[in-house]
Amino acid sequence: MKNIQRHTYRFEKGVFIIGGSAVVGPKEGKTPLGSEFDKVCPALRGTEHTWEDSEIRMQKEAVALLLEKIGKKESDLDLLCGGDLIDQLTVTNFAAKEKDIPFLGLYNACATMAEGLLLSSALIHGGFIGDAVVVASSHNATSERQYRNPTELGAKRPPSSQWTVSGAGAMALSDKKESVGIRIVAGTVGRVIDYGCKDPGDMGAAMAPAAADTIEKHLNGRSITEFDLICTGDLGKRGHELLCALLEKDGIMTDERFQDSGIWMYSCENDVCCGASGAGCSASLWSSYLIHCLEQGKYRRVLLVGTGALLSAVSVGQGRTIPAVAHAVEIVKEE
Amino acid sequence: MKNIQRHTYRFEKGVFIIGGSAVVGPKEGKTPLGSEFDKVCPALRGTEHTWEDSEIRMQKEAVALLLEKIGKKESDLDLLCGGDLIDQLTVTNFAAKEKDIPFLGLYNACATMAEGLLLSSALIHGGFIGDAVVVASSHNATSERQYRNPTELGAKRPPSSQWTVSGAGAMALSDKKESVGIRIVAGTVGRVIDYGCKDPGDMGAAMAPAAADTIEKHLNGRSITEFDLICTGDLGKRGHELLCALLEKDGIMTDERFQDSGIWMYSCENDVCCGASGAGCSASLWSSYLIHCLEQGKYRRVLLVGTGALLSAVSVGQGRTIPAVAHAVEIVKEE
Repeated sequence: MKNIQRHTYRFEKGVFIIGGSAVVGPKEGKTPLGSEFDKVCPALRGTEHTWEDSEIRMQKEAVALLLEKIGKKESDLDLLCGGDLIDQLTVTNFAAKEKDIPFLGLYNACATMAEGLLLSSALIHGGFIGDAVVVASSHNATSERQYRNPTELGAKRPPSSQWTVSGAGAMALSDKKESVGIRIVAGTVGRVIDYGCKDPGDMGAAMAPAAADTIEKHLNGRSITEFDLICTGDLGKRGHELLCALLEKDGIMTDERFQDSGIWMYSCENDVCCGASGAGCSASLWSSYLIHCLEQGKYRRVLLVGTGALLSAVSVGQGRTIPAVAHAVEIVKEE
Repeated sequence: MKNIQRHTYRFEKGVFIIGGSAVVGPKEGKTPLGSEFDKVCPALRGTEHTWEDSEIRMQKEAVALLLEKIGKKESDLDLLCGGDLIDQLTVTNFAAKEKDIPFLGLYNACATMAEGLLLSSALIHGGFIGDAVVVASSHNATSERQYRNPTELGAKRPPSSQWTVSGAGAMALSDKKESVGIRIVAGTVGRVIDYGCKDPGDMGAAMAPAAADTIEKHLNGRSITEFDLICTGDLGKRGHELLCALLEKDGIMTDERFQDSGIWMYSCENDVCCGASGAGCSASLWSSYLIHCLEQGKYRRVLLVGTGALLSAVSVGQGRTIPAVAHAVEIVKEE
């Protein structure tokens, strides 16, 4: 007898988020949510020689600040997992290399933070580990050069495009509850969906179908009124509209519960076109602002939906479509 | 009280390998182990327009042949996970996109197959899934162009180099035993280790320290005589010698139990220099030859150690070192 809910994992035993931290660039620090981040870097590149070095530093700082916050040492951690957008996870590999922590590299583009939360929760629930840190990052200059144009070119961006966030977010998961009980209670692993979008300057459209599929699978008939927030990773304005249209076509009415981190991040300033994107978008917002909202009781049950556009410079150059994947994580604040 | 064995997961409940399949290129098919593979492609590129399309096809064929072998459909699978070496897992994403299977993208370079076996085993043991397929691949022409030189250049290769395998391997894991009981009983998650090697034409040296660290952690004082085989992923001749030297320095005497898939693959023909490499090296050999050896009782307890060199064209171009990671998976044939 097959489990019909093969996509969704339930974590009945306690899997707790015991802390989060986010380190972002100057542009992100100037947004209305800027004060939520743990550290705002004064420049996109500090004293480092390369953009990659700056992103590596941001990721390392996010983990170091998190450990300080939760009062743990590297040797207390049983797992470090996560990823970034740079080829072969260059940033995460180099950020992880000075740490004596078991390491698993993950890649699902901008859904990597959600993927890491899901897998770490399963490993904690299964009794394999006690404490894990999940980390993800992106950087505007490293990503734009790799996927589209070096930022130094000053190329014109299409209105459908999004601004890659410079930021790193890290979350600490544990089998032991801290003062405020924030629990991961379930998660849904998405599948790779491809509606044939080909424009690397319009990733919201490419990701919306995967987000809709994963949300529907996770809800599995439950009412959206059970949630205070259903927050996608980085669909942006266009992708968010498409997501709502796709869900409503399937009978799921959307309302102000549905939010997108890519719209939240910059409050849609004009120069960011459709909003923010990047693995660091959801990672930094969820690891700071969202955890604060849960701690303060603004939200009691949220569904985070990481959204990843699975393109590469190779695939775009070869004229391929942009497949996408989305993973969902359900989080509750205990009474 | 902290678990001192934080790196090693034990799977006391049954996690079974119920099948494997491998699809390889013409060079791999002509080796002494060529007859072990499920399919040997007559050309490195078939009717496809790009090298990447050939690798995508190989990965899809490996999964399709595996499902046929174990008598299951895509809808029977609860998880597809794995990866490849191409930027942003291009190959795996495109191979996965037509499948209605929950998908997790993993990247630990050539240790990706071991990473996938470990994570799938944990998800099965934790009761989250019943059936999973782990897949990994590499292709000589896609990898060489990306990491070093396009093969069409005919560039001279240094004696320390290895030949990237063109091949895809897939393994099916299940919570239910098939006729022959091959069980994954434990696994060790490695950490990122960097001894400062900088030569992308000598990856064996870069990976040997990570392999030694993971093997020592997994053994945790146990005698190597408990194992019939301790098989690394793709250290090649140089890396294998360094591994043995590192282990012996720490008091672990090495003997003919210690083998390397990178040496096995081509039986060290002259034109492959130090042997084979690539995520498809261990993936294709372990998914075919090694499973056959276990089925036939040639080995009863083996330790597979996936070895990944965490370099990228970006990191090499920026003059960085080559960090590495290794994950171990312990497999037994039940009486």
